[in-house]
Amino acid sequence: MRTLTVDLGERSYPIYIGSGIRQQKELFSKAIAGKQVMIVTNTTVADIYLADLVALLGADYKVDTCILPDGEQYKTLATYESIMTSLLEAKHNRTTTIIALGGGVVGDMAGFAAATYQRGVPFIQVPTTLLSQVDSSVGGKTGVNHPLGKNMIGAFYQPQAVIIDNDTLKTLPERELSAGMAEVIKYGLICDAPFFTWLEENVDDLMALDNEKITHAIYESCAAKARVVAQDEKEGGIRAILNLGHTFGHAIETEMGYGEWLHGEAVAAGTVLAVDLSWRMGNLTEQDVERSVALLAKAKLPVLPPKGMGREAFIDRMLLDKKVLDGNLRLVLLNALGDACVTSDFSMDDFNGCLNDAIEAASAG
Amino acid sequence: MRTLTVDLGERSYPIYIGSGIRQQKELFSKAIAGKQVMIVTNTTVADIYLADLVALLGADYKVDTCILPDGEQYKTLATYESIMTSLLEAKHNRTTTIIALGGGVVGDMAGFAAATYQRGVPFIQVPTTLLSQVDSSVGGKTGVNHPLGKNMIGAFYQPQAVIIDNDTLKTLPERELSAGMAEVIKYGLICDAPFFTWLEENVDDLMALDNEKITHAIYESCAAKARVVAQDEKEGGIRAILNLGHTFGHAIETEMGYGEWLHGEAVAAGTVLAVDLSWRMGNLTEQDVERSVALLAKAKLPVLPPKGMGREAFIDRMLLDKKVLDGNLRLVLLNALGDACVTSDFSMDDFNGCLNDAIEAASAG
Repeated sequence: MRTLTVDLGERSYPIYIGSGIRQQKELFSKAIAGKQVMIVTNTTVADIYLADLVALLGADYKVDTCILPDGEQYKTLATYESIMTSLLEAKHNRTTTIIALGGGVVGDMAGFAAATYQRGVPFIQVPTTLLSQVDSSVGGKTGVNHPLGKNMIGAFYQPQAVIIDNDTLKTLPERELSAGMAEVIKYGLICDAPFFTWLEENVDDLMALDNEKITHAIYESCAAKARVVAQDEKEGGIRAILNLGHTFGHAIETEMGYGEWLHGEAVAAGTVLAVDLSWRMGNLTEQDVERSVALLAKAKLPVLPPKGMGREAFIDRMLLDKKVLDGNLRLVLLNALGDACVTSDFSMDDFNGCLNDAIEAASAG
Repeated sequence: MRTLTVDLGERSYPIYIGSGIRQQKELFSKAIAGKQVMIVTNTTVADIYLADLVALLGADYKVDTCILPDGEQYKTLATYESIMTSLLEAKHNRTTTIIALGGGVVGDMAGFAAATYQRGVPFIQVPTTLLSQVDSSVGGKTGVNHPLGKNMIGAFYQPQAVIIDNDTLKTLPERELSAGMAEVIKYGLICDAPFFTWLEENVDDLMALDNEKITHAIYESCAAKARVVAQDEKEGGIRAILNLGHTFGHAIETEMGYGEWLHGEAVAAGTVLAVDLSWRMGNLTEQDVERSVALLAKAKLPVLPPKGMGREAFIDRMLLDKKVLDGNLRLVLLNALGDACVTSDFSMDDFNGCLNDAIEAASAG
């Protein structure tokens, strides 16, 4: 097991990463202050992992469960309200601890419930997908979608602990493993060139779930994100570099309808666009672009936007993004492999060229 | 105008109190960082004060408005969602500022919307009732009710500034003025004996809205609350003394149905119960009890529970209160006039005697 501390002053917390650690009771009991526990999960994850966790904690705590429907389309205020109702019906008080057992959607909603149940109760993340292990379990972003926009309702709220058992990846569909790899690769691109090179050398072993290598990749990803978040907890500045590929990616997700393209798939295609634009601006070599595309492709990710999605659709969706300040489109771009910045300093010619070429390639492909 | 700073480190903010200050543009512009402003208010307050505020800010900012139905029964997730929809439809981004113009219900909901719109945007409170001026505008509690409990959903979130124009009390129904006085009197009882004596001497002038005296009463109330909150922002300990009369009071409010008894009215009757219990425990003199009852009565507040509300109803409702830790009922009681504590160290005989006598007096009255 490896342990990483996310350093946020009095809101600091540990991330434990290892094989089988979801059965180590002391990792939970160190983070649970009261006697009540509410495990929030979804129908898919409940079938595989819920009974074990209830059995592990049931002797020491009053354990209740709240099983949500599975899918991004249920990441709504209505589902959130159902968590609140479960907590109240089971008479949970302010000393309860909420455990999020599942992927990013479960973590975001359970975290938002924890942030706002009786104005805030402790919570523990047990992420079961690669995406949630390397992304949403670090950084304290919680929330739900609104029909007019993704993640528009939420709070920054830090867990007491994150317990990442990489054995859970064995039951993850390969398409979701790939989606998680999009974020892993992103960390290399934005802030860690040696890690990017390591990923190129080990991507096949990672896709085969080599335990030691997957632990390393998760650790390095969380460490990269933790370094960035520690500098900028509330996303005032530098933290935005974590959104490489996301502004394009959100446009793709929204245009296709939530759930059609997985978040990581949209981010992968968006990352290629951002890398391409960075190359057009003279920041990257052609080889850098090829290496990025090749690595994403080896992780079985799309490297082109969805067929039929036009320029207008991109631009309309992107202008509604949270990162648009007063109508001024800002993007995360690369200064070099392993070095990202947030900027609105790009030419519309480059921007349009990058979009048009990708759209053309997609329609030809 | 008087200015008070609520000292919460980087979350510190000023409270301005004075006659006519809702028309002082610089108080707003100091607290608004971006170009977008969303004023959240209700139908009643909008009719009287909204046009002036829109006119004041309209030249400098893009001002949108969101007018909620008036009443505690609308303090729901559904109304909260309608604020989010208004913000998204008007394309407000993360640099928007939300202004809460109205009483406690508007402040709580607009504050919760600010706490959670795109994971948090700035907001300004312009409380227009005495209750909200002395209570909910200080301390950062925001939220909505759930059908299973009052204020069960919410967040701690501090405003950029609170602008208290006591001229707005001129349009407040007298019953609501009294309800606000219940909280003013509470501050004297829990932590400021000289202020309690000053209130006894000036209650008639306060009920007649003498400008200088009402400014003083609001300032001292906010200052008392700010002192307590500064010691305990998240209500881990000492802050609970602000709930004098509230555990009994919430039981009354819930039993009667929200809106039947005003919050302040229920708190007044609850305060008499807490004072009576403190006397039975030997902490107060009979004269202390009489002075407390007399002052509340002079402020035209109820000093007995609602006719027909029995002991069982009190106990059932109180055990669901947020302040009940693991089934252990804790109450705010007085050690002396001007000195409160939170304790579960009272005898059930005293507790039952206090409740039974009040219930009997109410049924006789």
